[in-house]
Amino acid sequence: MKSLTLEQINEVVKGTLSGCTNQLITGAEEIKLAGPNHITFIGSKKYAALWNTSKASVALIEESLVIEPGDNRALIKVKNVDLAIACLLELFAPDSPVFDTDIHPSANIHTTASIGAGCKIGAGCYIGANVKIQDNAILYPNVTVLDDCTIGKATIIWSGTVIRERCQVGAYCIFQPNVSIGADGFGYRPGADGKSIVKIPQIGIVIIGNAVEIGSGTCIDRGKFSATTIGDGTKIDNLVQIGHNCQIGRMCLIAGSCAIAGSVTLGDGVVIAGRAGIKDHVTIGNGVKIGLGAGVINDIADGETILGYPAINYRETLKQWAILRKLGKNS
Amino acid sequence: MKSLTLEQINEVVKGTLSGCTNQLITGAEEIKLAGPNHITFIGSKKYAALWNTSKASVALIEESLVIEPGDNRALIKVKNVDLAIACLLELFAPDSPVFDTDIHPSANIHTTASIGAGCKIGAGCYIGANVKIQDNAILYPNVTVLDDCTIGKATIIWSGTVIRERCQVGAYCIFQPNVSIGADGFGYRPGADGKSIVKIPQIGIVIIGNAVEIGSGTCIDRGKFSATTIGDGTKIDNLVQIGHNCQIGRMCLIAGSCAIAGSVTLGDGVVIAGRAGIKDHVTIGNGVKIGLGAGVINDIADGETILGYPAINYRETLKQWAILRKLGKNS
Amino acid sequence: MKSLTLEQINEVVKGTLSGCTNQLITGAEEIKLAGPNHITFIGSKKYAALWNTSKASVALIEESLVIEPGDNRALIKVKNVDLAIACLLELFAPDSPVFDTDIHPSANIHTTASIGAGCKIGAGCYIGANVKIQDNAILYPNVTVLDDCTIGKATIIWSGTVIRERCQVGAYCIFQPNVSIGADGFGYRPGADGKSIVKIPQIGIVIIGNAVEIGSGTCIDRGKFSATTIGDGTKIDNLVQIGHNCQIGRMCLIAGSCAIAGSVTLGDGVVIAGRAGIKDHVTIGNGVKIGLGAGVINDIADGETILGYPAINYRETLKQWAILRKLGKNS
Repeated sequence: MKSLTLEQINEVVKGTLSGCTNQLITGAEEIKLAGPNHITFIGSKKYAALWNTSKASVALIEESLVIEPGDNRALIKVKNVDLAIACLLELFAPDSPVFDTDIHPSANIHTTASIGAGCKIGAGCYIGANVKIQDNAILYPNVTVLDDCTIGKATIIWSGTVIRERCQVGAYCIFQPNVSIGADGFGYRPGADGKSIVKIPQIGIVIIGNAVEIGSGTCIDRGKFSATTIGDGTKIDNLVQIGHNCQIGRMCLIAGSCAIAGSVTLGDGVVIAGRAGIKDHVTIGNGVKIGLGAGVINDIADGETILGYPAINYRETLKQWAILRKLGKNS
Repeated sequence: MKSLTLEQINEVVKGTLSGCTNQLITGAEEIKLAGPNHITFIGSKKYAALWNTSKASVALIEESLVIEPGDNRALIKVKNVDLAIACLLELFAPDSPVFDTDIHPSANIHTTASIGAGCKIGAGCYIGANVKIQDNAILYPNVTVLDDCTIGKATIIWSGTVIRERCQVGAYCIFQPNVSIGADGFGYRPGADGKSIVKIPQIGIVIIGNAVEIGSGTCIDRGKFSATTIGDGTKIDNLVQIGHNCQIGRMCLIAGSCAIAGSVTLGDGVVIAGRAGIKDHVTIGNGVKIGLGAGVINDIADGETILGYPAINYRETLKQWAILRKLGKNS
Repeated sequence: MKSLTLEQINEVVKGTLSGCTNQLITGAEEIKLAGPNHITFIGSKKYAALWNTSKASVALIEESLVIEPGDNRALIKVKNVDLAIACLLELFAPDSPVFDTDIHPSANIHTTASIGAGCKIGAGCYIGANVKIQDNAILYPNVTVLDDCTIGKATIIWSGTVIRERCQVGAYCIFQPNVSIGADGFGYRPGADGKSIVKIPQIGIVIIGNAVEIGSGTCIDRGKFSATTIGDGTKIDNLVQIGHNCQIGRMCLIAGSCAIAGSVTLGDGVVIAGRAGIKDHVTIGNGVKIGLGAGVINDIADGETILGYPAINYRETLKQWAILRKLGKNS
């Protein structure tokens, strides 16, 4: 458990300290659950009202709010509480799981694979032929990377993740547990007999940029030919399906349980709320925002905010919902 | 294959035997598929009508139904057929997969981990530093438990499941294959440059109560700080997403493919049908029932039954559906 | 990298060659991304217009379209471009990941398991007691197959997949990474105390036919008793949930992120678009088509095309959508 002085904390959040400043803080906690030696957060009047009954020793507080630290307690006024919390969590982050040896003796690494300096490869990992892993990458136990893949510098891959052959992963990525990269796309054609279904070979790959994060259980299929691509800095949550030949832009945020069908194109900075779906071959412009559970079946221009199924401008969807509700009540 | 007399069966289901009672039963099967030496189930007149043509030797039958066993066949009348079936399945449950040795020699168990008496750890499992596993827990092959986790008494974890560092799992839990516990929550903030996306460290954990069951492919993220919690006795189906800092009550039932966003609070005894979603920070009261595919975006009071998207009282949603249908037909 | 002459390509696609036919082709690519030594595809006038500016050396072109090959370039006219592409991709398919030894020394294979001739079993695989794997099956690294399962001839199972005890998999199947077969179904009953939830034993199995493909992360639960069955030739995409005791017909196509609840029956040749859901115990006839994101709560007759939630004939749903949209605009 880390133990920090208020001065050490304030060096990071760069706020204004008041009250009793000689305490040691061992963790961060929300205002109702916090105990002594915890630092908590006050971003609004609602939370400010809870300060007197909170057991926390210290609070990060939005600078416009006016409360007193009270006896033996302290406040740190900051401009942006959310940003300060993020910095604080970094400060309190516990150590990652240990590797007694950089390369666990039970890891199976093909003789033709190349592993960079400072890499850590956990127990039971499999690294196939000609795989190239750059310096300081970390693979936790029981990760599988098949032949001819490349993995960039300092990328972290958690246990149970599978990366199929020939896929390319950038630097500074984080893959959560049980991710599947490079499965065959869902492509079939009617057989010559008019009755059978014939698999279309999926000979492409997946190319993932730098600083991409992929949530647990998420699946990104390889291209039918060419590649499914994920742009730099894009973050994808858990249990998201991304079909073959999607082109996902940079700095997108895709929340949990979304389903993006094959050959969808996303611009940069697209934000998709949870449980939304996008039809195959749809093109979504830069900066588009897609609401919770939306079903997108048409191309969407840059900057639009859409909602509903079929997804249209969110104001129209909200109107439809209001009308339906009124009709239901009046019936 | 187990082989049981009708007396052995009736000892468990506690019904009234009639007909030819000297048969041996080797399995349970539904009425259309059952063969000789099978026991089947008759809970309604519809199924009673099939008894004459069924090949089953014996039927469990609701006591109010009136049929004859017929030649060389038998009936067991019971008050509650569903309950009797459940007891019966337990009776016929085949043995679980074997462990030739309690701890498979290929399992990688850190020297600082402690493994209770009677535990079984399968081939290829990884158990990290300081992990504590209580007595009689079973980990099937290729499970990964990272550092500082605790796993309670008699908990069963099926293959492919990953539990990340510092998470706590109660006693008598069952985790199906390929579950992901403790992945980082989906938390980011805009970078100081106004363009980049910065990861907010997710330093919390997951705390899972006793007698919790988690379906295959389901993901439960760790808290941003503090913990994501799952209450005692709660059962979660396959491919469910549970975001960071959710507080899930006791004895909840969450069906397959649901998506519960971050910081959602569920009371006790909440029942959620399949493919439903809940928006982040929503609070759901005790005993609430959420219908199939519902999208919940507002807090819900105790005992409500809701449906639709946005989810409201199910009667109003059904009215809206009826109105829409009428409008469509009249157009 | 493979390198093929136009004659070698045309032997497979059986078209009509024109233009400069002495080039070597190393890959297939869409018209905008193609470079020299690539073959591309022209199925419509829209794509034909891009031929002059494309860098591709050769195009497969629908025979009704009229364009000129141009200097040092070639065209191959074919009746069906899609079919020709499929054949072509097979031609260019790179080799699969290598196995230095058929059975990796780190695979854990129970002494009572039987492995057919020509099988390949990757590093870290676990094969339980009495498992029977037919000739030429391939299990990539870190696959888990528990006791008493059978796996048919030439079936391919990618890494991370778990098949629980006693399940039966046919011949010529392909399972993508991290599939879960045979998890317990989601079945519980109220305890005798009226408060607790008691697990109903799930003692059935999963039976998967021949030539079935299952996408990454997909979960198919074992029967409560008897079996969950998947018919010959059915193809299932990623992250699909199939509940206990479903009976899925032959030659069905089930797209990504669908959720099929327990005891659903699907006829043959059913096509389900992505993100759709089906309520438990519903029966779907042969050849039914279910639209994107539909929620099916009633039985559906053979040959219907349905859409919406609750899903009805797609024309009615489209009418409802149009009416709602008009109401929203007029308000």
